[in-house]
Amino acid sequence: MDFSHSATAADYLGRVSDFVRTEIEPVEPEYHRALHASADPWTVLPVIGELKAKAQDQGLWNLFLPDTERGAGLSNVEYAPLAEQMGRSFIAPEVFNCNAPDTGNMEVLLQYGSPEQQEQWLAPLLRGEIRSAFCMTEPAVASSDATNMAATAVVKSDEIVINGRKWWSTGVGHPNCKFVIFMGLTDPEADRHRRHSMVLVPIDTEGVKVERMLSVFGHRDEPYGHGEVSFTDVRVPLSNVIAGPGRGFEIAQGRLGPGRIHHCMRLIGLAERSLGLACARASQREAFGKPLANLGGNRERIAKARIAINQARLLVLHTAWLLDTEGLAGARSEVSQIKVAVPNMALEVIDMAIQLHGAAGLSEDFPLAAAYSGARSLRLADGPDEVHMGLVARHELAAYKNG
Amino acid sequence: MDFSHSATAADYLGRVSDFVRTEIEPVEPEYHRALHASADPWTVLPVIGELKAKAQDQGLWNLFLPDTERGAGLSNVEYAPLAEQMGRSFIAPEVFNCNAPDTGNMEVLLQYGSPEQQEQWLAPLLRGEIRSAFCMTEPAVASSDATNMAATAVVKSDEIVINGRKWWSTGVGHPNCKFVIFMGLTDPEADRHRRHSMVLVPIDTEGVKVERMLSVFGHRDEPYGHGEVSFTDVRVPLSNVIAGPGRGFEIAQGRLGPGRIHHCMRLIGLAERSLGLACARASQREAFGKPLANLGGNRERIAKARIAINQARLLVLHTAWLLDTEGLAGARSEVSQIKVAVPNMALEVIDMAIQLHGAAGLSEDFPLAAAYSGARSLRLADGPDEVHMGLVARHELAAYKNG
Amino acid sequence: MDFSHSATAADYLGRVSDFVRTEIEPVEPEYHRALHASADPWTVLPVIGELKAKAQDQGLWNLFLPDTERGAGLSNVEYAPLAEQMGRSFIAPEVFNCNAPDTGNMEVLLQYGSPEQQEQWLAPLLRGEIRSAFCMTEPAVASSDATNMAATAVVKSDEIVINGRKWWSTGVGHPNCKFVIFMGLTDPEADRHRRHSMVLVPIDTEGVKVERMLSVFGHRDEPYGHGEVSFTDVRVPLSNVIAGPGRGFEIAQGRLGPGRIHHCMRLIGLAERSLGLACARASQREAFGKPLANLGGNRERIAKARIAINQARLLVLHTAWLLDTEGLAGARSEVSQIKVAVPNMALEVIDMAIQLHGAAGLSEDFPLAAAYSGARSLRLADGPDEVHMGLVARHELAAYKNG
Amino acid sequence: MDFSHSATAADYLGRVSDFVRTEIEPVEPEYHRALHASADPWTVLPVIGELKAKAQDQGLWNLFLPDTERGAGLSNVEYAPLAEQMGRSFIAPEVFNCNAPDTGNMEVLLQYGSPEQQEQWLAPLLRGEIRSAFCMTEPAVASSDATNMAATAVVKSDEIVINGRKWWSTGVGHPNCKFVIFMGLTDPEADRHRRHSMVLVPIDTEGVKVERMLSVFGHRDEPYGHGEVSFTDVRVPLSNVIAGPGRGFEIAQGRLGPGRIHHCMRLIGLAERSLGLACARASQREAFGKPLANLGGNRERIAKARIAINQARLLVLHTAWLLDTEGLAGARSEVSQIKVAVPNMALEVIDMAIQLHGAAGLSEDFPLAAAYSGARSLRLADGPDEVHMGLVARHELAAYKNG
Repeated sequence: MDFSHSATAADYLGRVSDFVRTEIEPVEPEYHRALHASADPWTVLPVIGELKAKAQDQGLWNLFLPDTERGAGLSNVEYAPLAEQMGRSFIAPEVFNCNAPDTGNMEVLLQYGSPEQQEQWLAPLLRGEIRSAFCMTEPAVASSDATNMAATAVVKSDEIVINGRKWWSTGVGHPNCKFVIFMGLTDPEADRHRRHSMVLVPIDTEGVKVERMLSVFGHRDEPYGHGEVSFTDVRVPLSNVIAGPGRGFEIAQGRLGPGRIHHCMRLIGLAERSLGLACARASQREAFGKPLANLGGNRERIAKARIAINQARLLVLHTAWLLDTEGLAGARSEVSQIKVAVPNMALEVIDMAIQLHGAAGLSEDFPLAAAYSGARSLRLADGPDEVHMGLVARHELAAYKNG
Repeated sequence: MDFSHSATAADYLGRVSDFVRTEIEPVEPEYHRALHASADPWTVLPVIGELKAKAQDQGLWNLFLPDTERGAGLSNVEYAPLAEQMGRSFIAPEVFNCNAPDTGNMEVLLQYGSPEQQEQWLAPLLRGEIRSAFCMTEPAVASSDATNMAATAVVKSDEIVINGRKWWSTGVGHPNCKFVIFMGLTDPEADRHRRHSMVLVPIDTEGVKVERMLSVFGHRDEPYGHGEVSFTDVRVPLSNVIAGPGRGFEIAQGRLGPGRIHHCMRLIGLAERSLGLACARASQREAFGKPLANLGGNRERIAKARIAINQARLLVLHTAWLLDTEGLAGARSEVSQIKVAVPNMALEVIDMAIQLHGAAGLSEDFPLAAAYSGARSLRLADGPDEVHMGLVARHELAAYKNG
Repeated sequence: MDFSHSATAADYLGRVSDFVRTEIEPVEPEYHRALHASADPWTVLPVIGELKAKAQDQGLWNLFLPDTERGAGLSNVEYAPLAEQMGRSFIAPEVFNCNAPDTGNMEVLLQYGSPEQQEQWLAPLLRGEIRSAFCMTEPAVASSDATNMAATAVVKSDEIVINGRKWWSTGVGHPNCKFVIFMGLTDPEADRHRRHSMVLVPIDTEGVKVERMLSVFGHRDEPYGHGEVSFTDVRVPLSNVIAGPGRGFEIAQGRLGPGRIHHCMRLIGLAERSLGLACARASQREAFGKPLANLGGNRERIAKARIAINQARLLVLHTAWLLDTEGLAGARSEVSQIKVAVPNMALEVIDMAIQLHGAAGLSEDFPLAAAYSGARSLRLADGPDEVHMGLVARHELAAYKNG
Repeated sequence: MDFSHSATAADYLGRVSDFVRTEIEPVEPEYHRALHASADPWTVLPVIGELKAKAQDQGLWNLFLPDTERGAGLSNVEYAPLAEQMGRSFIAPEVFNCNAPDTGNMEVLLQYGSPEQQEQWLAPLLRGEIRSAFCMTEPAVASSDATNMAATAVVKSDEIVINGRKWWSTGVGHPNCKFVIFMGLTDPEADRHRRHSMVLVPIDTEGVKVERMLSVFGHRDEPYGHGEVSFTDVRVPLSNVIAGPGRGFEIAQGRLGPGRIHHCMRLIGLAERSLGLACARASQREAFGKPLANLGGNRERIAKARIAINQARLLVLHTAWLLDTEGLAGARSEVSQIKVAVPNMALEVIDMAIQLHGAAGLSEDFPLAAAYSGARSLRLADGPDEVHMGLVARHELAAYKNG
């Protein structure tokens, strides 16, 4: 057993960590101020472009992609600590071209896309020129049960016709978002996991309408955002179906493992940053003649946060390693375990940090309230806690079932 | 021991409860939609005025005021259940002219105000014509320790001169907010609890500036809001000091007991409403072929919410009764106990309700995210949990101190 | 709403409280030492008889019994605070002739017993001359589901024949235990709640065998104990059936409400005593140059314990009042609520007190480990938490069911 | 990063795991029955000797010892998974000669003992012929603060004279316990960490008296036990001091790291076994027509237990690896982290398993109540949670201290 980073991973880790701390974190407060002061916050401020260029220059680009040619060729366990660093900041993931859902979309296109699809959609995504969204969750049904999905993608000769309403389509508010991957029901008679298709839909196709941008605990996460999107008789060529009709679930499956590891590692970075802010505040602020750190149970809360973060990080790293060595089939329970453990851990840590900041922690003066909102949404996104706990328990009980 | 409501209380309770359910809750969604759609949400929509008039007509007005002449003459334990009903809705407290911080300000003016102050400020507040704010918390110091307060209110012959910066001044964003009660340091040499004064400051006085409206978890709570206010050489007549210089702490003291009971009871109403929404959702929404109520631990969570709410309500009612029968001196620990117990309970219940709603629970489609934000702020407002736990422990250990 | 005690209740409360503190608590340590030093701890030490006589002399006897002639005529809400005082000590309940399961058995005999049954069994129980047990739970089935009950009580002409195995029959180890109330299946064809009977079985009847005394977390609770009892072709006259065959569930029902209130109030007394011990230890013991009370989160834990106890007490008192005013039918959810809330609260408080005592808290030098064991068993006895939460949720959701 | 076991570790792991499951677990119930049925449970049943011989035969002996000559030469991270397997059973540690406190005592003697001390005490310990205890904690002071230690070990020419009272001396009840390592104050004037000495004291030395065996939650853990031992003018040769007077703290320091890893890994084994029992029970037992696994929140609890165990195990393994690669100085916070995290995790899991077993889980029919008792004591032994959280927080805040 060896917990040290590979030489490659250690090198990237040092560089990404430095970049985040010296290039990104210092400009973040001003970035947010400027964004919220602008007439339209659904915009990309110039600083983002500059940072992207700098990151790309330094080879800190598409690090998530295991492909050695187009990405950095890192395994999941090597990339995970980089994702943690990026998670410290709201803008870092885009700066390194490693933000969801583009990462998942790129992986899907790389693995399942036709050469034409790759040329048209993957290439500009890899260059960071465009952005994309993913349309799966629906407002009218409990999406925790994916088989509830009701939107349709019906083959009509050489076209596929799309109807339905999706929401929580993250990134759809970004001005550069050029297409979505839509998932819908194609053949209700087919085998349970062969019924759905994934379709590439340019966002300006007729019949596609972003009805509104949703808020999460009052935050709209501009300029990415989470949209509610209606599809009304939207027609695209059959060649826009990824890997052919009926393969939606199979493809969705594949993006789950790495995607959840990325989400969880970013949350760990967010929790670390929150703990850091809490420690700084506890050391500097005084009440009743003492620094907050020396009052009541504050030190115990800081200790618990440290313990919780460390445990969660190890759980994700181990899951990443399992995914690398045994594939998704050998890491299914673990992938669900991190999906339960990490967001809940992050919420505890962030909430503790908020409390130590007093009312300031609730405001936009610190990134904590937004961090809480982001972590809270991950108890639901990609499956609620309850569904993942159910899966973990099923694995656990499998050995005990009556014959 | 008798847990039944007095006849008067029962009568009011039935009427307030009906009013909230039939007049207010049904218009709330449209109210919020209209408010957020308006160019300036710092506005009072006409429906508020209509509801206020109706409430006043029905004698459901100033119910919080124990004064029999100007208020309803209810004891704390009689008013508490009414506050619970009002707490179900964000707008109900104003509709009944029972919203913070106006309630506290009215009580202060009634008890400590000069006839002139009552005439000028209390009378229009009681009629619901104007609104007010309370300026105590400061950004630069840990306000959990009130003796940290640094803003000044210095007597200069027949004027009092105010300087400093306050924040979290709730209600200061309301277009009808006409004055604030400012608390500041008058005599640093005086006895520790005789140093501060409370001063009535018209909001349009020269040198008063609302610097910005703060957000709480992304919510700005328009049109009430929480403001950061700077005071620069603000001069008002000495007669604007309430009860004379140096009595700030004494007056602050008095408003704490009832104020905390009101806050807590409103939170219980909010928790009840959230539990109701959770039950409705759990009964109606289906996943994996069953209503959510029949999946996993959902029923246990609902049961725990019911148990937690009931316990918290009884704790507040008992505290209200203690306050009525023994005064603040006999209820000090209990007042701090509810301030710890109730917001934490409400957060648990609301969070559970959010989770049962899925991602919808995070959005503005349900009042849950805003409810969470409101409850979270009450773990800090009026003293953070930690300060109140410290007081409760001090009372508990008092009997055991070494002589 | 009036939280004050009735004059009668206040008078009893003062006297019981004094008796527990001055007569019982001081002799407890020596009592336990002597009991464990004796060759056979399944014995009644003389001090118990002396205390019983003294309690009876002072009219502090059978206070649980609402009957005005044979008991004190107190309502549930009046008796509850007395049960709390008794719960501070392991021996107090017997001293006041108010210990389970005799209290429940006396109530059953008073309400359902024939004159002959009352003469033979109730009278000596009321005088404290004999003791009894209750045989319901079975080792071979999940007793959380009472319809699983498999032991039989079959009518054979003028006799009833009993077969089966029961366990957790509390009190069966007591040398004065003269009979048990046995509950078993009489008519498997009858209506679901008319199948079982309750039968009075003298403990020396042929075929009755106490197989062993069980331990709870290593404690055997001598001289009361929890026995596993086998019944092999045990024959008693048909007149020993209480209220006639098939009425077992109906009778069991009736004892649940008051029984659970007694259990819960005693636990609150135990929690109070544990908190008192914790405060004393925290004030007296020093580490790192300070009393434990001033280290880390200890004060917060003490505050939380106070808040938790107060909430739980009020929940039980309110439930008692509901039972008094509306009967079991109006208090069903609440009775289950206290059964979940109180043992869990008590465990938290006792565990905190143990931790503050260091390793001493785990030992027999303090009553805390035994207290923990007793409270832990009440998360299972009389129905596990899970069953009670299920009932609470069912009540909660009843209003929301689809028509 | 590589989470796979080394070849050596994997080989041992397979063999230890098999041995525990095929040789030890099956005989455990009968072992406990026989032990408790025996007139004197402070005895070594023959089966223990047979199992020890078999383990020694198979080379599964002294595996904890990193020394390649006398032990297995395993690193901490290699031994940790073996300790987990041993922790599944109460008797396994002794069977493999890997039980506390003998392991710590052997390490101390190996590292600091003189050749004579090693010949006399270490050799027979390594052969499993004798056993030993460690006397550090004292009843009269808060031992969480080690500098409170009041017992004395005073040099008088060529003897050292010992006085004082120790308790929680684990293993002192074992019939083969031949000596204790006593820690006491030698020079109150010396530097704070040079005041104490460790002395080898044969248990039959005049003046050594085992006053009583303590219980932990009612368990006495025969035949090991936890003793209270008085030392009255006990005289042993100065050559019995380990490494010379004044080095007690230095030596104690060294045993902490591995010792805590062993304790924690054994607890993880205990938690795993408890989870296994819970799953088996949940699959087999039925209530309300379903296996318990399909009722209420039971699956969620099983999932949470799995997640908690996995996180805790990784935290301990990582700490073991840190200890191997950076020494105690580089793992101080982590060693305290596991000491907080693991016992609390184990208690949660065991308690859940108890609840799923119903009242049977509280009894001696399952190893769960004893497991709970053992895990509970580890929230205090080797330093209470609170002290370890304090250390973790101190490390965390170190970077933020004002210069």
